[in-house]
Amino acid sequence: MKITIEKQEFMEAINRAVKAVPTKTTMPIMECFLLEAYGNEIKLTANDFELGIETKICGMVLENGSVALNAKLLSDIIRKMPENSIYLETDGKWNTTLTCEKCVFHLNGQDAAAFTPIQIIAKDRAITLKQKTLKDMIKKTIFSVSKNDKSKLMTSINILINNDQCMRMTALDGHRIAIRYADISTPIKEKVNVNIPGKSMDEVGKLLSEDEEEEVILYLEDTHVLFQIGQTLVTSRLVDGDYYRVDQMISPDWSTKLTVERVALANAIDRAALFIRTEDKKPVKFDIRDAEVSIMGDSPFGSLKEEMDVKKEGKNMLIAFNPYYLLDCLKVIDDESIEWCMTNPKAPSYIRNDEAGYLYLILPVNIGK
Amino acid sequence: MKITIEKQEFMEAINRAVKAVPTKTTMPIMECFLLEAYGNEIKLTANDFELGIETKICGMVLENGSVALNAKLLSDIIRKMPENSIYLETDGKWNTTLTCEKCVFHLNGQDAAAFTPIQIIAKDRAITLKQKTLKDMIKKTIFSVSKNDKSKLMTSINILINNDQCMRMTALDGHRIAIRYADISTPIKEKVNVNIPGKSMDEVGKLLSEDEEEEVILYLEDTHVLFQIGQTLVTSRLVDGDYYRVDQMISPDWSTKLTVERVALANAIDRAALFIRTEDKKPVKFDIRDAEVSIMGDSPFGSLKEEMDVKKEGKNMLIAFNPYYLLDCLKVIDDESIEWCMTNPKAPSYIRNDEAGYLYLILPVNIGK
Repeated sequence: MKITIEKQEFMEAINRAVKAVPTKTTMPIMECFLLEAYGNEIKLTANDFELGIETKICGMVLENGSVALNAKLLSDIIRKMPENSIYLETDGKWNTTLTCEKCVFHLNGQDAAAFTPIQIIAKDRAITLKQKTLKDMIKKTIFSVSKNDKSKLMTSINILINNDQCMRMTALDGHRIAIRYADISTPIKEKVNVNIPGKSMDEVGKLLSEDEEEEVILYLEDTHVLFQIGQTLVTSRLVDGDYYRVDQMISPDWSTKLTVERVALANAIDRAALFIRTEDKKPVKFDIRDAEVSIMGDSPFGSLKEEMDVKKEGKNMLIAFNPYYLLDCLKVIDDESIEWCMTNPKAPSYIRNDEAGYLYLILPVNIGK
Repeated sequence: MKITIEKQEFMEAINRAVKAVPTKTTMPIMECFLLEAYGNEIKLTANDFELGIETKICGMVLENGSVALNAKLLSDIIRKMPENSIYLETDGKWNTTLTCEKCVFHLNGQDAAAFTPIQIIAKDRAITLKQKTLKDMIKKTIFSVSKNDKSKLMTSINILINNDQCMRMTALDGHRIAIRYADISTPIKEKVNVNIPGKSMDEVGKLLSEDEEEEVILYLEDTHVLFQIGQTLVTSRLVDGDYYRVDQMISPDWSTKLTVERVALANAIDRAALFIRTEDKKPVKFDIRDAEVSIMGDSPFGSLKEEMDVKKEGKNMLIAFNPYYLLDCLKVIDDESIEWCMTNPKAPSYIRNDEAGYLYLILPVNIGK
């Protein structure tokens, strides 16, 4: 293989693909990028079996070929190269030479045949939507994905398309549920209900553009999904199983509804959380009386009490929450003011806006009163 | 005690003093700030016995008093307060209330009498210099201070004033020496030769301003030094003992002198260092032949060889160095091109410019040839 690539192009491709390089593995071949040059195309691939990324690099192919190169070393080498054109050559024993100006790197490569390429996925079941829309949906649900590996299903994000153009994205961890709705670009006939690992969705989110015009296509198979993001393909294994029946958990009833300024509420909760060390699991209390809420946090070292003006409908209530669950969703809502509905101090509360396409359900913490 | 302080003023004072709060201690009182209000003055103090910082806060004293407050909690509370005026009140049992707008924090304080104030230092032996000058000297020597606690003297920075207006600052660790010279603002009669802990100098450096006009005064006693930096006082214990006789280690002789572009050399060394993991302690080799230097790094995984044009006087030489020692000093030199003198592959090399006031001595690594 003989190729020429501009340093900047090479670096950008590495940064896209590197997310699929496993951090811990005992197989040296898995720590590699696969670099392939055929015809006019140069491709860089990383694959940790759950997640695979293949991306095209703009460059010149002088001689076809392929090689597997240690991802960390290649990444460090390219980063430290002068800002200029890099010439890469591989001999029959996968010894690779990278030359840029007066500097010559030798890198021991491995046989490309030992590298597992990314899953090939048929392109017949396609969903198209704006990259910005998908990026936004991921960012605004992913924090609710369970960090606990015990239930694989809870570590995944569910994508549901029931009617022809509306996509629902759901993440939950047993204490809270995050749901976002958005429109896809072209209607589809078939119902879609798949669970994609949270880690894969996180990496996909980072690869998606903020650009209003760019689109992403999802191709679905029984066991895998493929995201086509410009010149980059991302494949991910799907998580098996029927996702939780979220609709059954959400009730439209409430006995107390607060309308409150979002940033002010988040700041007050953040202050009250100050005395709470995560291991304590002590909640922040909300004493809702008429048009005022007292927000309270306390510990052996000190306490906070803060009064906040709110618009209240329904009953007074004393209720407590894990402050971080509230802060997570308040941070990703764009509305200036939110509606927060509660039923009783032991039943789920929810912050929702159907027009804006979000619903966040949060379980209160029992304070035994 | 009853005082009023603007949030921003309070936060800035905390950020100045917090560096003297010990991170690990079994004595709760040492984790505290001392807050004192007398007459028109509000002072915040932290003291870990090696380093003490006392800083004034602009504010209003409504009632005199003092209290010791947990530094981490106070710092978190003030950071999260609204951007407004904070009212702080302490009762007879050191219970402290902080009020800002509608938010009220209670914090359990401790008796101020249990807090050890900073060392009182006589102000008769004074050295005055520009804050920017001292900041610069610290930044450009401190990386050579030994990280190994075995020799206390090596963990300190030596300040020497032999003639009346020139100050020399020295740091060394057994493999290298960093020396910087600069003028103090007003001549002094007495000779000065003190060793200040590297950690204290590091914190002093952070408190010093980049402003060309501001001055800092050092007051010296037998066991302590006091830095007066505007409204902030920093005291530090001195390290006992006669500092190393650095002059004897520096020889003006050389057999090879390279004149080389500093940034290009640093980039090439940085690339060659890529294959060197710190635990390997493998050096980067320099093959000096006529007007060219080959810079080489290698490992079982790969290697780099880079040619560089230089101006050379004297003999050809094959010599090897720890690349990080070279990079540390190349980073803090301002000159575009440097002069690097070597005697033989086992004797100290030095990069110096007497006019610019620096000398960096670096021992080569023996490659057994």
